Amino acid sequence: MSEKHYSYNELYEFTYSVFKKIGCSDTHAATATKVLLSADMRGIDSHGVARLIGYVRLWEVKRVNATPDIKIIHETPSTAVVDGDSGLGLVVAPFAMQIAIGKAKSVGTGWVSVQNSNHFGIAGYHAMMALEHDMMGIAMTNASPLVAPTFSIDKMLGTNPICVAAPAGEEPAFVADLATTTAANGKLEILQRKNADTPMGWVQDKDGNPSTDANILKKGGALLPLGGDREHGSHKGYALGAVVDIFSALLSGANYAPWVPPFPAYVPMPVQQPGKGIGHFLGAMRVDAFRPADEFKNNMDNWIRGFRNAKPQQGQEKVLVPGDPERAFEIERKKNGIPLVEAVVNDLRQLAEKMQLPFKV
Amino acid sequence: MSEKHYSYNELYEFTYSVFKKIGCSDTHAATATKVLLSADMRGIDSHGVARLIGYVRLWEVKRVNATPDIKIIHETPSTAVVDGDSGLGLVVAPFAMQIAIGKAKSVGTGWVSVQNSNHFGIAGYHAMMALEHDMMGIAMTNASPLVAPTFSIDKMLGTNPICVAAPAGEEPAFVADLATTTAANGKLEILQRKNADTPMGWVQDKDGNPSTDANILKKGGALLPLGGDREHGSHKGYALGAVVDIFSALLSGANYAPWVPPFPAYVPMPVQQPGKGIGHFLGAMRVDAFRPADEFKNNMDNWIRGFRNAKPQQGQEKVLVPGDPERAFEIERKKNGIPLVEAVVNDLRQLAEKMQLPFKV
Repeated sequence: MSEKHYSYNELYEFTYSVFKKIGCSDTHAATATKVLLSADMRGIDSHGVARLIGYVRLWEVKRVNATPDIKIIHETPSTAVVDGDSGLGLVVAPFAMQIAIGKAKSVGTGWVSVQNSNHFGIAGYHAMMALEHDMMGIAMTNASPLVAPTFSIDKMLGTNPICVAAPAGEEPAFVADLATTTAANGKLEILQRKNADTPMGWVQDKDGNPSTDANILKKGGALLPLGGDREHGSHKGYALGAVVDIFSALLSGANYAPWVPPFPAYVPMPVQQPGKGIGHFLGAMRVDAFRPADEFKNNMDNWIRGFRNAKPQQGQEKVLVPGDPERAFEIERKKNGIPLVEAVVNDLRQLAEKMQLPFKV
Repeated sequence: MSEKHYSYNELYEFTYSVFKKIGCSDTHAATATKVLLSADMRGIDSHGVARLIGYVRLWEVKRVNATPDIKIIHETPSTAVVDGDSGLGLVVAPFAMQIAIGKAKSVGTGWVSVQNSNHFGIAGYHAMMALEHDMMGIAMTNASPLVAPTFSIDKMLGTNPICVAAPAGEEPAFVADLATTTAANGKLEILQRKNADTPMGWVQDKDGNPSTDANILKKGGALLPLGGDREHGSHKGYALGAVVDIFSALLSGANYAPWVPPFPAYVPMPVQQPGKGIGHFLGAMRVDAFRPADEFKNNMDNWIRGFRNAKPQQGQEKVLVPGDPERAFEIERKKNGIPLVEAVVNDLRQLAEKMQLPFKV
């Protein structure tokens, strides 16, 4: 796999111009670009510019509205439901998170469920918006069905990620950002490119048998919930994915379970649509709604250092704290740029030609 | 393993009289008994009357205060911190959940972090308190360190369970109640009684090597986070357990990470105590703070039926919905009573003698 490196600014400029070209406002284009590239910077390559062409294709088939009228359709002092008006999730989710933060400022916490949206990039970006306000941030989204619940052959849930971010003092923030599956789809894509097998416990075939085929999703197979099988707690991963679906879609009126619209524009929409678009859930909790922020942050520092100082297993350098791997990527990529595999570069080049935009390669 | 069956009322009467004997008020004794026995009824035998003698021992060494002055020490419209005054978690957690429910009534959601408490039984009881108010309920607690994070030899977290309960319409409620480990400690105890091994991925030995020894905790080993190992997503289980710790203890000022007090009274308290007692986190979200409760509950029914109708794997009767196994136990035990293994019966008999209480066997 050949890889080329691009600076953040190069990719920012191009991505921004693509979002402008499909009709986004300056502000929306800037937000969407920042959210998308935060994935590349944090090493979650499957959710970054690699998906740019996918968002454009959704716009082409009129499933993404580039000029959405995003609005609150119901609210209480600590909650709101937002209608994303089919906008980019990259724009809708930060809008909803700002509302959560505002409500947390006034009543301690804010919780916003979102309907009628599209894929929102990485959950981490949205949850981390809370940190600068000395708040904890929570972000979840449902997604199209790739995951078979425990005992099921049918795919009923998406990889439904959860992110929780908590500020610290001298230490960097705690950021747990995880798909509720054993492995996210992006991990399969990496193995596909290498022609490698998956470990047992990641996927099953179309009949529900254990499999190690990284291409199994194309053959009717499914991803497995965190835990892998019943004996290893897959019913827990399934339950967590279900919770994400309920918070994101049942509370908001979005589509849920197997009826969540797919990301690839060429995949037909589900026949049954019990709600609108896909759903997210965003939350913010003001730390000092519980105790003085300084006390909390001192304790977080002590907590984090405790884990960093835990004795590592032989062969492991150290025990990591959630957020460490992504932060290491960020530091490295700020210095050396973002590596893109050839397939992604080709997609971007194709996009540049079609939209008559410059893309330097 | 010989087992005797006891009716709910028999065990209620005895358990209530034990709590009265250590000095609990009528109300506290009744609440503690209800919470404790809800575990036995729901098939979570490790958290029911099997633990009664353990609570009494904690009271004997003055780690449980039978007449606590449980109070709010800080609050905002949607949040509170509760000081449990070293009371039984069985009493402190329902107190805190009532506050969460009250705040949800007035501002849409309520979130209560608790310090200075003790073990609270099953998370499910507390989360399910929200259901009758047409609210979603959330309950978490930290616990003494039995779990080694990914790459760690040291035990840094408890089994830190999470429960989320959501009301449905005609269908029974969705109740996901799970330890953030591959298997809870109670599962090991069952295998110990059978002299059986654990599957791979449940535990590791004192040096961090994979193990299948169900007695490994007594030999310096550890439980593993949900996922088992890094390749199967144990960093996600670890992150979820960490989130529970932060919500329960860092927000409240309870002890956290490896410094959480142990349940067995004979285990010495940690030398370092950065907080007070153990911590819980209780939340309630009014469904109609988001959308009309009827709409939500209709959608939940449709969601639940979708999963029940999913195609099961060969050899599996059907796909379950979180809460189904516990509900099946409840139905069966209401009819046939609660089976107690001999070791538990002996504990109760010993307790009856010591406290001069009648215990019919």
